[in-house]
This record gives sequence, C-alpha cells and structure tokens, in this order.
Amino acid sequence: MARRVTLSHGGGGVLTRELVEEVFLPAFGNDVLRALDDAALLDRPAGRIAFTTDSFVVKPLFFRGGDIGRLAVSGTVNDLAACGASPLGLSLGLVIEEGLEIDTLRRVADSLAATAREAAAPIVAGDTKVVERGAADGLYINTAGVGALPTGPAPGAGRIRPGDRVLISGALGDHGIAVLSEREGLRFETEILSDVAPLGGLVEASLEAGEVHALRDPTRGGAAAALNELAEAAGIGVEIDEEAVPVHPAVRAASDMLGLDPLSIANEGKMILFVAEADAGGILDALRAHPRGEEAAIVGEAVEGHPGVVAVRTRIGSRKVLEMPHGEGLPRIC
Amino acid sequence: MARRVTLSHGGGGVLTRELVEEVFLPAFGNDVLRALDDAALLDRPAGRIAFTTDSFVVKPLFFRGGDIGRLAVSGTVNDLAACGASPLGLSLGLVIEEGLEIDTLRRVADSLAATAREAAAPIVAGDTKVVERGAADGLYINTAGVGALPTGPAPGAGRIRPGDRVLISGALGDHGIAVLSEREGLRFETEILSDVAPLGGLVEASLEAGEVHALRDPTRGGAAAALNELAEAAGIGVEIDEEAVPVHPAVRAASDMLGLDPLSIANEGKMILFVAEADAGGILDALRAHPRGEEAAIVGEAVEGHPGVVAVRTRIGSRKVLEMPHGEGLPRIC
Repeated sequence: MARRVTLSHGGGGVLTRELVEEVFLPAFGNDVLRALDDAALLDRPAGRIAFTTDSFVVKPLFFRGGDIGRLAVSGTVNDLAACGASPLGLSLGLVIEEGLEIDTLRRVADSLAATAREAAAPIVAGDTKVVERGAADGLYINTAGVGALPTGPAPGAGRIRPGDRVLISGALGDHGIAVLSEREGLRFETEILSDVAPLGGLVEASLEAGEVHALRDPTRGGAAAALNELAEAAGIGVEIDEEAVPVHPAVRAASDMLGLDPLSIANEGKMILFVAEADAGGILDALRAHPRGEEAAIVGEAVEGHPGVVAVRTRIGSRKVLEMPHGEGLPRIC
Repeated sequence: MARRVTLSHGGGGVLTRELVEEVFLPAFGNDVLRALDDAALLDRPAGRIAFTTDSFVVKPLFFRGGDIGRLAVSGTVNDLAACGASPLGLSLGLVIEEGLEIDTLRRVADSLAATAREAAAPIVAGDTKVVERGAADGLYINTAGVGALPTGPAPGAGRIRPGDRVLISGALGDHGIAVLSEREGLRFETEILSDVAPLGGLVEASLEAGEVHALRDPTRGGAAAALNELAEAAGIGVEIDEEAVPVHPAVRAASDMLGLDPLSIANEGKMILFVAEADAGGILDALRAHPRGEEAAIVGEAVEGHPGVVAVRTRIGSRKVLEMPHGEGLPRIC
C-alpha cells in the first residue's frame, strides 16, 4: 500500500525528522541545510540583497511541461532575476494535506532539487506543516529567496525612459493554457507545454549585452498585468504592437476558443524587458542566442504620452487600451 | 453584508491590487514594501546573514493570548534570534480560502503589523493566493525572515561544552494548552494565555550578559524536541531537573488532565539557552530583568556522559530519558 503523509509527520518530532531525512535531505542535500539549525547562515553578500516570496497553489500538482516543484523554484528565482539579483539561497515552506502519498512528495522534492540545481539556487531552509484531510488540496509550497545585487543601479521601473524598447523573451500564454488544459482535460491538436523555467542565465545574458532598465516576469495576470504595473510605477506610457508579440499558434487557437487574451495569460518562463533604444538590437540578439530566448522579440516602446496607460496596436490595425486584468482570470494557475 | 475574499482577489489583477492597497499597505506601510517590486531591496548587511522560513496553520486563527498574525511574526523572528541574528526584513505569503471575511484579514494584518513593529522586523515582501472553498481552512501564513549576524561566532549547537548550564526563559506549555483549549472549548479555573511573543530583545539581553553558546525556541515538540535536537547536534548529554522547570499551575493541571507532558508542549515565546557555567548567574539575572523572562530558571546542564541523550531527574526523584516526541502531539498548534 502506498505510504502517505500523516498528521504526525507535522508534529515536529521523530516522524517529522524522518520525513526530512528520507525525502528532503537526499534531494536538496547541502551543508547549510544539513545543519538543520533554526536558520540558515549565509556568507556575507558582496552588495545589497534582494528578498522575495511566492506561494504556489497550482492545480493539478503535475501538468504538461512542469509541476509545482519546478514552478516554486522558477517563480522565486525569476523574481530575483527581475531585480538583477543572483540567488544566494531559497527557503521552502510546505503545507501538506494529510494523505498525500510519500512518493508524490518525493517526486516534487526531486523536481524542486533539479530546478534549484539548474538555477544555482540552493535550498537552505525549510519547514513542513501537515493539515487534516480537506484542509488543503494536496500540497501548497512557499518559496522565499535571497539574492545578491551587483553594485551599481539595479533594474527597476524608475529607470524606464521614453524611447526605451520593450522586449519579450519568448511566446506568451503557454503556461496558463497548459495547466488549464491539464485540469479540464482539454486536448488540442498540438500539445501545449508549460514554459516554466528559471531565467537567471537569460537575464544575465541580457544585462551583459546592454543597458537594461527594467525587468518583470509576466506571471499571474500575464503581460497585461506586468506592463500596467511597470507603466504605472514608472509614470510612463507604453505602446505595444500586438502583431509583434510572439504567441504559439496552438495557444492562439486555444485562447480564441476559450475567450482568453494571450496577453493576460500567466507565463512562468518569460521575461519582459525595458531596454535603452540604442542597445535593443544587441540585447535581442543576446536573448535569441540563449536557449530560453530563441523566440524573443521587440514588441513595443515606452512613450511620453498617456502616462500609466498601456496602448496596443491590434492585429487588425485598431488601437485599444490594454487594461490591467480585473481578476477573473484563471484560478490556481501558479 | 460582510465583504469576503473571492477567487478574483488572487488573480494578480485589479482586485489583488485593491486588496493590497486596502488591507496590507496601510497595515505594514514602509518604503521598501510600497515599491511593490518583484523583490525587496535591502541595504548591504554588516556581516553574514541568517535566513529562515515557517508556515503557520494554527486553528483557530484567534486564540487566548494571540492569533495567527502574532504567531507568524514571532515564530520567524525567534528563529532568527536563536541564531543571534537581528531581523532585516520579513516576507509574508498568504494562502486564503475563498470566503474569508475581509475584516478578519484586516485583523490579522493589524496583528502582523503590530508584532512586526514590536520586533523591529519590517514586512518588506509579500504574496497573496486565494484557493476555492474547502481547499484551505481560512488562512495559512508563511513568513520567511532575513537577519544580520554580528561578527564573531554565532550561537550554535557546535559551541555547547560539558558543564554548560541550561536555562529556560520562562514557564513551559502555555501556548499549546491555550490553543487546544480554545479549539476544544475547554475551560480551566485560571485562564491560560498563549505566550506568543517576539524574543529579539530578550536574546540580546542574554548575549550582552555573558557567553551564550546555543539557543533554540521550543515550539512544535516543545522543550523535549529542542533539547534532543541540540543534544544530538552537539553530540553531548543533557541533564534536566524537572523540579526546576517552570510550569504554571494551571498548565500543570491541564496537562495532567489531558495526559500531556509540559516538556513536550509547544511554546511560542520561550527560549532555551546553553551558556558558559561561569556566566549562568549573570545571564539568569539579565533574563529575569527582561519583561519576557521574569520566570527564567536554570534547569540543567550539559554533560560528557550519554551523548545525544537528554535525561530528566523527575519530580519524584527517579531518572528517565526525555525522548524526542514521536509526532502524535497536538496538530495545528502553530
């Protein structure tokens, strides 16, 4: 019979320790974590530090192209990357529903570990809680991350200038459609895989190629939310050319069918960049030379007019305001 | 009618922003958080950094002497304090069940904010997810924390030496009994209040008073788990004099009635200290002079014999091994 997580695994005693030693330490094993102290001690960073947190409640736990573990590491690493920070360490907070199979937990731990290695982001601190059946849905994960910032100005909305070019590192909408189709049992002619991936290397390549003013990963709320947040924070207008926005044909077809706008669908392996006009070509080349940026494109620019508003030249030639999504998007997509 | 959290509040769009602006920013308002960037940027710390995480699934959300908000800040701040670190910033990850009253969320936010101020631990990063009814139990909170370590050796199990005195900063078991009695509707002659509190100031006072080798806050699994973890990590024996362990009479009576050992019940405002023998008296005085340490006591010592084992001289004069709790303790107590 499959071994399952029990309430006692969350009691902080022998069984909690067994779970840590059987599932987590073999997966994440590193000296800092193995010390099992109340907190992880990290070397003094060279500059300022960046600190971020994300909880993941995606349903189902495993989907085409990824799973909650890969999502949890990528999401937090990408938030650090969006500030120009490289990860020093991640923390992992698990809320487990009683009855989850230990093998399922192990699969998630292996995925967390593999993605952490890929991202060079060691998991250095953790906590496990167990709630009774019906008080969670399998497994929720929180990952917080600490990163080191290089000296010099960090990328941020405040550095966006009129004339900046807007780049997207690849096609939009894959993650949201992949999770939705898994959950609802939808099938499309072409299989749609989540793009979930850590983007530290991609961001580093862009920073080395030229002057990057601001970065944001378009997750919940998609590019529409990310662009509106940056436009508002920068007090600047943004013009997007819809025709230039890369969207895979299968995602386009699925979005049309479901009445969704690819610009408002969540991504978990894409970055939006505002870059100096003169460097846009070089940064685009650098993105495209990276395995996670082959479909990168210049999709618009920052303008002086309509501060805080994102305007789109649509595929049929009209102009519309790209609104901040209201909130009725897809639940539990990340 | 009471306003409630909806799934749309977790969509990452306008409604998520409204919740942040209406509930969280007014409560936690500080410039770092208000930037609403993907990550908080913190000044370069003077030394090494400590990093920790904890999730809180306590039931009920409000209990005698505290609530999930006070618990979430105290738990993480105390993990930092146990490493000798002072907090630079906390992150806050919320998983909310659809239908939670906005007023309840606001009460928790106010408590988080008040405790963060008390602990001088600003909440600098956050994330909010909403899951459908039945997929969580009201509200779960993750708090991760980053702290700065002073130069010089940090307290840790590796510094424990035979002869070290074991101190407890106050009476044991209040938190676990308070939450349990709230949940089960138990009434005792004397009201038992949770001890939940941030202990940074108390720990600082102890560090200034003498040579503190190791600290641990006895939360889940109580003092029994904390002492066993330290004994094992240090490879040293521990002798505890049960008669010397402070326990409030009402907690003693409730424990006897419920068949629980106060040494295995969770605390959220207590610290266990291993200190140099010569400094034990001075450190005890310093603890007792602090409002959160008035009932501090010397309860035992580290010994060369029986490495990894915690022995107790019981109140009736016999000796027994204080086992690591197995895990069948109280669920959802923190």
